[in-house]
Amino acid sequence: MLGCGVVGSQVARLLREQADELAARIGAPLELVGVAVRRPNRHPDVPADLLTTDAASLVARDDVDIVVEVIGGIEPVRTLLLDALHGGKSVVSANKALLAEDGATLHDAAAAAHVDLYYEAAVAGAIPLLRPLRESLAGDRITRVTGIVNGTTNFILSRMDATGSGFDEALAEATALGYAEADPTADIDGFDAASKAAILGGLAFHTRVTAGDVYREGIGDVTAADIASAKAMGCTIKLLAICERASGAVSARVYPAMLPRSHPLAAVGDAFNAVFVEADAAGSLMFYGRGAGGAPSASAVLGDVVAVARNRRNGSRGTGESAYAALPILPMGDVATRYHVALDVADRPGVLAGVAGAFAEQQVSIQTVRQEGRGDAATLVIVTHSAADAALAKTVDRLTGMDFIRGVASVMRVEGMPGE
Amino acid sequence: MLGCGVVGSQVARLLREQADELAARIGAPLELVGVAVRRPNRHPDVPADLLTTDAASLVARDDVDIVVEVIGGIEPVRTLLLDALHGGKSVVSANKALLAEDGATLHDAAAAAHVDLYYEAAVAGAIPLLRPLRESLAGDRITRVTGIVNGTTNFILSRMDATGSGFDEALAEATALGYAEADPTADIDGFDAASKAAILGGLAFHTRVTAGDVYREGIGDVTAADIASAKAMGCTIKLLAICERASGAVSARVYPAMLPRSHPLAAVGDAFNAVFVEADAAGSLMFYGRGAGGAPSASAVLGDVVAVARNRRNGSRGTGESAYAALPILPMGDVATRYHVALDVADRPGVLAGVAGAFAEQQVSIQTVRQEGRGDAATLVIVTHSAADAALAKTVDRLTGMDFIRGVASVMRVEGMPGE
Repeated sequence: MLGCGVVGSQVARLLREQADELAARIGAPLELVGVAVRRPNRHPDVPADLLTTDAASLVARDDVDIVVEVIGGIEPVRTLLLDALHGGKSVVSANKALLAEDGATLHDAAAAAHVDLYYEAAVAGAIPLLRPLRESLAGDRITRVTGIVNGTTNFILSRMDATGSGFDEALAEATALGYAEADPTADIDGFDAASKAAILGGLAFHTRVTAGDVYREGIGDVTAADIASAKAMGCTIKLLAICERASGAVSARVYPAMLPRSHPLAAVGDAFNAVFVEADAAGSLMFYGRGAGGAPSASAVLGDVVAVARNRRNGSRGTGESAYAALPILPMGDVATRYHVALDVADRPGVLAGVAGAFAEQQVSIQTVRQEGRGDAATLVIVTHSAADAALAKTVDRLTGMDFIRGVASVMRVEGMPGE
Repeated sequence: MLGCGVVGSQVARLLREQADELAARIGAPLELVGVAVRRPNRHPDVPADLLTTDAASLVARDDVDIVVEVIGGIEPVRTLLLDALHGGKSVVSANKALLAEDGATLHDAAAAAHVDLYYEAAVAGAIPLLRPLRESLAGDRITRVTGIVNGTTNFILSRMDATGSGFDEALAEATALGYAEADPTADIDGFDAASKAAILGGLAFHTRVTAGDVYREGIGDVTAADIASAKAMGCTIKLLAICERASGAVSARVYPAMLPRSHPLAAVGDAFNAVFVEADAAGSLMFYGRGAGGAPSASAVLGDVVAVARNRRNGSRGTGESAYAALPILPMGDVATRYHVALDVADRPGVLAGVAGAFAEQQVSIQTVRQEGRGDAATLVIVTHSAADAALAKTVDRLTGMDFIRGVASVMRVEGMPGE
């Protein structure tokens, strides 16, 4: 095992506590033969003779069949895992960043060495998701995957929705409760969700998708006013990771969006994760559970370890990468989305005509317009039909410059509405 | 393929429409070489030269690698599938009744011939469930599986909850809409759910569980008054299939129960299915989707076909039966449950003392007592703490005979309440 932090220490514990059960399930015992860490004196729960600071030598040992990686980050992990794969070891990893940045290199190495590369824990922690996508739905045609895959941001948005508080206040609460890290950038700005979107998109559409292919917006700009606007139209706001098959291409994107409260994902609160999958034959499926935490992630890691061990006993390997479709990535500007726009407007004749004209210029069709308040407090709330994201963005730019518009109060994409 | 009804015709369609995609995913083409049916002239969509009425000869053909069974029922299917397995063919089946009655014989035959026996479609249609239980959670310790696994009864109970109608009215609506079969006994009386509970319990607890091991009550006695009682305590009523590890044994049971509206399963409406899984490390997981219907079930069948085909190309087989734990089955009387009891009582001094005494006699602890109405319309509503089911049943018997009790208005188990 490489690393022994929050997840690794739970993996070590379960390997010890469930040794007999695991052996019965595999048909052979699993033995933890070494744990590479930076500071051996910080791991009193691990037998001292298993600990080493020399990860490269551990990976190279002849008595190692499976390398479990729970360090995270790109280097030195990539080099270590490539060495392991080249040396005929199978790899179980929880490293979403590495898989999303350079999964292709690892997959190629695993295929060449005829060994396994499993990473269920990299997306949505304990929720079985990669195996269902890769195997259970292998006979179906997935059209869309919509996920709440980051617990920190889901906690923050859930608090804002429940209490009406602003972003800063909700973030402070998340930090105090341990749901947000000291530097929450990777979560708040959507980097974590983008890595997971890349992995999900790759599996769902048999295409290599990297984190760089994923359009990304974080939740730092979501305001209490946005939440209130969402509520007024029966929606909540969620940070969504969306992978979609569209126009013969794959769209992968992460952004906060309004979602109808009737949508199964809308009820996913706190730090829970859930992924909603739509497929031609299966219809709508949802997978729900804990997306992070030591024990849940360790459960996913160990499930992979058991699978890899069973494969090795069979002299086989599991389902490898499937990237035969090699679809292009759809640019964000071409993605069909819907916008919710709230405009503070002057309450005078011709305003609606002017606003409607700005949408019409970009061929964006309006579904509903609602005026709230009067006089200086008038707000115009517009929800569009589905249109190219670039056209919607241009429309909002154009509106911002109009003299009867006092300000753009809220712009947010709308997902999961029926009838489109 | 054996059978070509609602599911089989969708399997044939998807095999035809997705041929190229499936071949790419497997690395070899899938060819449908024969379809055994009773009346060949009723299947105009299937090429005539594939149709045969001689299932036994089809199964014995040398060019058959995989037998897909979508007929249902015990015989002649069991004999056909055993012939297939003995002959070295892998089997994909959607036959919950057969798997729950005699899965052991089939599993033994598959293991002896070193071939696959897959049956994802047998439980909860398109929802990937068996593979997650058997593989993703193989490193964890599952403690409980609670499922809504029968769409017909879930539709009926959802309608009763939404409209306040009685059972007969809701059943008539389900029949009119095609959610209930002409003879709905297998659904209404819980036989269908019991088969699925047996399969789930077996996978979750590495123990052979048959339909006969499953305690079973149907929904035919659920009244509008029960639904109203449930509502009054913030619950809904669902037909639950529960498999639980308790006292070193496996409890498998199916009955209608009150469930708090805050429980994730409570929101599963209409004919949808969902399964809630609790495991030591993973925590709570939920799987949600369409539990029946031609296309969803066909998606599950084809996922299995792809997996089996990949295994055959690898010269391997997938994870077989895991029944090493061989736990005993816990008798229903020993299962710890909670009861909700509504009693029509005479409104006079000493009634509560008498009722409380009846519970105390059986060592059943009461959590809440609530009196509704006064005089001749007085109802006493009691919710117990967890106690042995036999003790609770005896308590209700005892209450029924007491002279100040005018009638037992409602008796129902309560599941999923926090704090126990």
